Amino acid sequence: MFNFNYQNETKIIFGKDTEATVGTELAKHTKKVLLHYGGASAKATGLYDKVVTSLTEAGIAFVELGGVKPNPRASLVYEGIELCRNENIDFILAVGGGSVIDSAKAIAAGVYYDGDFWDLYTKGAKPTDCLKVATVLTIPAAGSEASTATVITHEKTNEKRGYGHPKLRPVFSILNPELTFTLPDYQTSCGLADMFAHVVERYFTQQRHDIYTTRLCEATMKTIVELGRKIFKDPNNYELRAEIMLAGMVAHNDWLGLGRGGDWSSHQIEHELSGFYDLSHGAGLCIIIPAWMKHVYHHDMPFFAQFANRVFDIEINTANLEETALKGIAELERFYQDINMPIRFADANLPTHEIDKLVTSAMSGRASFGGFVQITEADVKAIYELAL
Amino acid sequence: MFNFNYQNETKIIFGKDTEATVGTELAKHTKKVLLHYGGASAKATGLYDKVVTSLTEAGIAFVELGGVKPNPRASLVYEGIELCRNENIDFILAVGGGSVIDSAKAIAAGVYYDGDFWDLYTKGAKPTDCLKVATVLTIPAAGSEASTATVITHEKTNEKRGYGHPKLRPVFSILNPELTFTLPDYQTSCGLADMFAHVVERYFTQQRHDIYTTRLCEATMKTIVELGRKIFKDPNNYELRAEIMLAGMVAHNDWLGLGRGGDWSSHQIEHELSGFYDLSHGAGLCIIIPAWMKHVYHHDMPFFAQFANRVFDIEINTANLEETALKGIAELERFYQDINMPIRFADANLPTHEIDKLVTSAMSGRASFGGFVQITEADVKAIYELAL
Repeated sequence: MFNFNYQNETKIIFGKDTEATVGTELAKHTKKVLLHYGGASAKATGLYDKVVTSLTEAGIAFVELGGVKPNPRASLVYEGIELCRNENIDFILAVGGGSVIDSAKAIAAGVYYDGDFWDLYTKGAKPTDCLKVATVLTIPAAGSEASTATVITHEKTNEKRGYGHPKLRPVFSILNPELTFTLPDYQTSCGLADMFAHVVERYFTQQRHDIYTTRLCEATMKTIVELGRKIFKDPNNYELRAEIMLAGMVAHNDWLGLGRGGDWSSHQIEHELSGFYDLSHGAGLCIIIPAWMKHVYHHDMPFFAQFANRVFDIEINTANLEETALKGIAELERFYQDINMPIRFADANLPTHEIDKLVTSAMSGRASFGGFVQITEADVKAIYELAL
Repeated sequence: MFNFNYQNETKIIFGKDTEATVGTELAKHTKKVLLHYGGASAKATGLYDKVVTSLTEAGIAFVELGGVKPNPRASLVYEGIELCRNENIDFILAVGGGSVIDSAKAIAAGVYYDGDFWDLYTKGAKPTDCLKVATVLTIPAAGSEASTATVITHEKTNEKRGYGHPKLRPVFSILNPELTFTLPDYQTSCGLADMFAHVVERYFTQQRHDIYTTRLCEATMKTIVELGRKIFKDPNNYELRAEIMLAGMVAHNDWLGLGRGGDWSSHQIEHELSGFYDLSHGAGLCIIIPAWMKHVYHHDMPFFAQFANRVFDIEINTANLEETALKGIAELERFYQDINMPIRFADANLPTHEIDKLVTSAMSGRASFGGFVQITEADVKAIYELAL
């Protein structure tokens, strides 16, 4: 187990009707916020009105910036930074899913950086401080509601890049599972795929002797598979929605990664798909992860056999661990298909002739990346080809 | 799933040599501490000297209060409260196991309460504030290093009572698994028993549809059993000690109880044993939990069969769930015996003729308690009798 420091100050306010408390919670910290959100859905569901009512009742002034799109864009971040500076905003309230929260975090860090905020994502630049962020979560997926991370796409280059800062963990996050009843099935699926990926990328590590977090990861993946196979038949089931929302938060708040190594190659290889083709990140992960697994499983066959056994209940063939390992990967693909996610480029209508461009962008100056296995340019190409 | 709020601000500093950072961490918060610890072991192992060196190098002044005993006593708490008031202490550093930390928390809350601090534990009194507490943990067991809880025994009445306050979560806790290499086997066993109990008491609930935290609890219990069966053969194995230390923290920091009901009857029935007979809390739990299980399992046979199956790998006899449930309880007793814990009054040389006294004290004015099943005076008596 590696040495680690862990501190997560985000207050999680979880359950029915909890969005009504947003104003009183904010009043503990500020008198004025940037209200950041996406598009029509927050208004159509009535959530926007509920939030505005709660802010008004608590005497919280607000400036609005809507229009966050999936794979949130740098252009809106620039706009938000200007707005916060001009309006003397010290707190951003993100109402939406991971895209809105990630956009809010980018603005929060960018306000305290003198240069182009994109330097934080690409050049290792550091802000002097960050605005405070809080969230009302509407899509369980990215785990951004309790994480330090933010991912932004720059329209000029189609680069999709991540950044993290301890001060970007939200001050509080409100998670009401009822708000997810109206999610389109596609978004529910993408969310399940994203949270599953957050566990997979922590799970596969060359660190040994992490018996405990290994089991916690397996418990989480098994739960996501079980819930994913139930939710579409019963989308207004509060208990199922609550479990999914909790799992999505835990999958990325780092409880499952304490002292582990982890490997974020699939996320990095996927970012080119959602960056260039505006595919949903969750859908892209379903295309990349099985291909990554097929490319690397022979580096630790027993671990992949354990994955098959403990997550998908596949009996271990002790005389042929490879068979068990491959069954596990096939079963993961079946799960993705069961929740109507693509598992190949063609399933998502992605062009198949631009792989060299994707490879170049994914490497972007690096010789290799990864934790379970170091991934080079040739590996990235092989993984894209396995996903065709 | 119940609505819940969760916030845990404790910074966990985990790993080799981390105790050397205690001075610099403290310097972020204070210039003077009460250094609170137990007896000879902190000095014999060299930990006391290391801590004092780190404090001195960081310019942290300190006043000492040693002498905390297992089942920490009210008398030392009174002394600590006076000392903190006289010395204008605003921060307590607890160096030790759960007893030292619980004593530190009692002092921290008592300083800000005008009356007898015991009112907090027995009369629902509330402090106006709490001193800050940090810990250097030496025994993975109580989970007090990241919890809001403290348990104190009053010598005058032998009452052992708990109290909790959000402000009693430590500011930071330093967990170096190396510090646990020298633990006597008995203390390692009591720690394993205590952390297992913290999961059991969250696990058995009448709340349904907590698929996810149920699996997290099972993963934790399975890990504790696996580690417990290995550690005594290999007590200086860093990785095993690290896993145990992490599990002990997670078992009681409430990650496993999010939105669940829980049932703390066994803890409450056990407190009479350690309160009256100065038995280790962990050992007492090994006597009470199997008896509690035998008394209540028929209220939810499928749940107890699941416990047997998922924690102890016992095959489910679908035609006779009772058989599976009872095998699970027997297997838990076997685990306790494997780690040399008592499972009956006689194993710990406890008197068997004072049960009525224990029952009266356990009820202490309450008509019933419990979550999975409501426990009345007759139930408490029956559980003690099952444990004889």
